[in-house]
Amino acid sequence: MKNKLLTLEELRASSHQIPGWEILETRLRKTFQFENFIDAFSFMTKVAMISESICHHPEWENVYSKVCICLTTHDSGGITHLDLKLAKAIDKVLEG
Amino acid sequence: MKNKLLTLEELRASSHQIPGWEILETRLRKTFQFENFIDAFSFMTKVAMISESICHHPEWENVYSKVCICLTTHDSGGITHLDLKLAKAIDKVLEG
Amino acid sequence: MKNKLLTLEELRASSHQIPGWEILETRLRKTFQFENFIDAFSFMTKVAMISESICHHPEWENVYSKVCICLTTHDSGGITHLDLKLAKAIDKVLEG
Amino acid sequence: MKNKLLTLEELRASSHQIPGWEILETRLRKTFQFENFIDAFSFMTKVAMISESICHHPEWENVYSKVCICLTTHDSGGITHLDLKLAKAIDKVLEG
Repeated sequence: MKNKLLTLEELRASSHQIPGWEILETRLRKTFQFENFIDAFSFMTKVAMISESICHHPEWENVYSKVCICLTTHDSGGITHLDLKLAKAIDKVLEG
Repeated sequence: MKNKLLTLEELRASSHQIPGWEILETRLRKTFQFENFIDAFSFMTKVAMISESICHHPEWENVYSKVCICLTTHDSGGITHLDLKLAKAIDKVLEG
Repeated sequence: MKNKLLTLEELRASSHQIPGWEILETRLRKTFQFENFIDAFSFMTKVAMISESICHHPEWENVYSKVCICLTTHDSGGITHLDLKLAKAIDKVLEG
Repeated sequence: MKNKLLTLEELRASSHQIPGWEILETRLRKTFQFENFIDAFSFMTKVAMISESICHHPEWENVYSKVCICLTTHDSGGITHLDLKLAKAIDKVLEG
């Protein structure tokens, strides 16, 4: 069973929970800037562990100290509660 | 001092050393397909360790079990021996 | 609620599912030997992702190319089905 | 050629550069405590990248949120400048 797409209203209502995440048509996107590659990749390792835990994975790219993460639910063709959940978990990991 | 760009002749002469790598105008590119996210990210961890060791880092993106790597030398504005070296090291890591 | 300790009979009956794992009094133990540090740590990254996924983590040590893993369920004071599950998952990851 | 062992005087003189590291007979040792496994393993990933970069690797163990690191130079049979260098780099990584 597919996850339900979030409506624009639901996304707007949730946006304060995911500061810095752009809400695009079919995905959430945020760019993270670190001091160097080691810090960037160590952050990616955290995100990898979280993603695997919740069985929902990002589309992401890394160039040296920068990591750009896009979240979308492929099966549903857009943004679902899974993406919201992962976005929050990623932000939380950065506070640690 | 900038690293010297490889000429098209040099790139062609080296291409057999880096099978599967596309030689684009300013970068080398190869896509790696794995069984699942765990295998893909574990490969990325190997590449991260190698990259940091030789102080030359990829531009790369990952979507679940797929990793696409681009190699270029920013300071030089194109492909240098550093990219060739990293491409070979990445291929080698996959044999292990 | 604590996980139930496996009896010696249950452990013996399961031992063929976890070849190479020593069954000690309160833990399972296996040593993994790799070619080099990169291969060893990349394996550890896989195990880390699996462990976090199933909320059960190893006690492990690494010296260069060698990784020694002990599995035990602290709350229960010995070996439970969680350790068996993680042991199997770790072995499976090595086949990939 | 073997790396020269540091004398006790040299170690004492350097000890203020590596706060929290115990100076044992043949090794330096420090225990790091994190919030959870994700933070602990992400730290280990940083240390792995640094270690591979400088071709000097720790003996370390991890239990959930705790990482215990021992540094020694096997070829020399004790503590050398390589261990001091790695200890400082590990401490530095934690500040980031």
